[in-house]
Amino acid sequence: MKNRFQYKKLRKVLTMPSIVSRLSIMVATAACFSSCNTIKEHKSSSLVIKEQGSFMVGGTKVIQPGTFDVQDALKPDGQSFHGDHAYAFYQIPEDASRLPLVFLHGAGQSKKTWETTPDGREGFQNIFLRRKFSVYLLDQPRRGEAGKSMVEATIKPAADEQFWFTQFRLGNYPDFFTNVQFPKDSASIEQFYRQMTPNTGSFDANIITDAVSAVFDKIGDGILVTHSQGGGPGWMTAIKNSNVKAIVAYEPYSGFMFPEGELPQPISSTGLFGALSGVEIPLADFQKLTRIPIVIYYGDNIAESPTTIWNSDHWRSGLAMAKRWAEVVNKNGGDATVVHLPAVGIKGNTHFPFSDLNNTEVADELSKWLKQKKLTIQ
Amino acid sequence: MKNRFQYKKLRKVLTMPSIVSRLSIMVATAACFSSCNTIKEHKSSSLVIKEQGSFMVGGTKVIQPGTFDVQDALKPDGQSFHGDHAYAFYQIPEDASRLPLVFLHGAGQSKKTWETTPDGREGFQNIFLRRKFSVYLLDQPRRGEAGKSMVEATIKPAADEQFWFTQFRLGNYPDFFTNVQFPKDSASIEQFYRQMTPNTGSFDANIITDAVSAVFDKIGDGILVTHSQGGGPGWMTAIKNSNVKAIVAYEPYSGFMFPEGELPQPISSTGLFGALSGVEIPLADFQKLTRIPIVIYYGDNIAESPTTIWNSDHWRSGLAMAKRWAEVVNKNGGDATVVHLPAVGIKGNTHFPFSDLNNTEVADELSKWLKQKKLTIQ
Repeated sequence: MKNRFQYKKLRKVLTMPSIVSRLSIMVATAACFSSCNTIKEHKSSSLVIKEQGSFMVGGTKVIQPGTFDVQDALKPDGQSFHGDHAYAFYQIPEDASRLPLVFLHGAGQSKKTWETTPDGREGFQNIFLRRKFSVYLLDQPRRGEAGKSMVEATIKPAADEQFWFTQFRLGNYPDFFTNVQFPKDSASIEQFYRQMTPNTGSFDANIITDAVSAVFDKIGDGILVTHSQGGGPGWMTAIKNSNVKAIVAYEPYSGFMFPEGELPQPISSTGLFGALSGVEIPLADFQKLTRIPIVIYYGDNIAESPTTIWNSDHWRSGLAMAKRWAEVVNKNGGDATVVHLPAVGIKGNTHFPFSDLNNTEVADELSKWLKQKKLTIQ
Repeated sequence: MKNRFQYKKLRKVLTMPSIVSRLSIMVATAACFSSCNTIKEHKSSSLVIKEQGSFMVGGTKVIQPGTFDVQDALKPDGQSFHGDHAYAFYQIPEDASRLPLVFLHGAGQSKKTWETTPDGREGFQNIFLRRKFSVYLLDQPRRGEAGKSMVEATIKPAADEQFWFTQFRLGNYPDFFTNVQFPKDSASIEQFYRQMTPNTGSFDANIITDAVSAVFDKIGDGILVTHSQGGGPGWMTAIKNSNVKAIVAYEPYSGFMFPEGELPQPISSTGLFGALSGVEIPLADFQKLTRIPIVIYYGDNIAESPTTIWNSDHWRSGLAMAKRWAEVVNKNGGDATVVHLPAVGIKGNTHFPFSDLNNTEVADELSKWLKQKKLTIQ
């Protein structure tokens, strides 16, 4: 009873996508430990940016019935309202790889996710610019700079940060996990809390997918990098738009899609979202996910078997679903890899591996995969 | 009656600051036309960025009474909520001028204001990076990436874009002003409409001032560049923080501050905000505004004498208040200049001179002033 109440409450807070799903595996077995192929960073050297800028993309509009009268300009009659677009900030380095990285944040986050880390180090934006990738950082519709929403929303300040500390696996508040790759000083934790930013309209995976697809219509071929709740719209974007040439997903949870007839049983969990279900989609749509390389990463402190420690068990269900999903993708001729980072020697990561203390090691792991899949071509 | 209703409604939509004011002059008389000292842009050349990143700054927090229990983590008891901070994205070019430019957007806008223009050209972000200024682009508290607000807000999609077209002086909708420096294609206009983004909490000039001041605490000396509604918090920041070494204000309207006893009569207007008033502040505070160079720019299609064309008359009152304010500043030993751009040969500008078609010319005008005031030193 209590759990049900909490679950409903949480759903409301998060406006998680209702699409959720099954999955299949492939914990990366061919582990290359961080000592091999580490890419040299030149943090003190300048970034040479051939082009940078921003744009709004996708979205819809409505026009109020009637006729606009400039003499009565506060009446909505005949006036328009544009909304539900995404915002993109992009940077193209000199001698860029052909395929840009397009970054989509997770729940309660914005493009800030990929920028400077809470303790002031370089995030994936700079790290991959240095590795010669063009980067596109998105604010999804109804978030951040893309705040114009086609639906009304009420935003309330809610004291919830110790929940997020725990849900995002910094530890079990107030304790940090002993091996956690998160800075423990209060200034860093404050930055982490402040980088959350609310929805200005309810979460809608279809609307996000349409806008992210519009990004790929505009820029052409690219690699989509998603985080957490961005995972679901990520799969949907790849189904919708063949310009998505690969997907990198950090800790997706909901939104795993299975072909009709192959939907697995929900995975029960003591996590605060309860059991995790997949989403059934037509085989023809699913097959589009088998035509591109996909890699999924999970961090540390995720239970290996069911436990009553809710954060650890929540992500256990996510990881298990990811493995099941990758199995189905690969059985259908696809190329999906699930990397549980501790299994390849990268320990202590939170729900935000790309901004953790060891994020260059995490980036090295991604660089290795991109190279392996020939996604680093000029 | 009708006007009163509209005015109230508009106030609600805009959540304009209640601080408003008088002013004093100095329409720049020593005009240097655009042909002189035009700075060469190298648009095709790469930007060399020594450092870039982002951070949250300022703000407050609350802690819900009680004790957080990790086993009941959705209860707010003992949990914290951080909000009302600003967000800053910064870029430092190689061989940067000593004083960075800190950009604060106006009503309904975000840091996007200073980025790529609606028709895809470079905005002041890139233009001034090329001119060797470090740039800090802010989202003020309760806007964009800085969406966590300490107060509740309801956001409604409101059909109002033809109002903004007119208020921001692209023309009198559906007509463009004949000389307007705004692209007339529908894609550019759509970008312009989509770059607005709502408040996630009511506008509060004090909260914005505190956060912008915290930016200057963090970065040290700098030049504050404001737009429109950002003007009021801009003056307040300079009063609060002596690290503000100069102010550049594009089309400020409300928030002009006068010393006690020198508050001018409100300036009546047929504009939809009605009469424009100044704000009275202690002389000691006002004097802080006399210790730094200040320049204020206004664009074109602003009436020279009262008219019933409401947009033109709205900005007439703003420009008149700015001139009055500059007079009082200068009479008190200050250095404030009001430049009405058409008076120095720069014609057709909207409320967004820095992103208009002639924005390099507008930038040249600013560069000239910065140089004159010795603000370009290494």
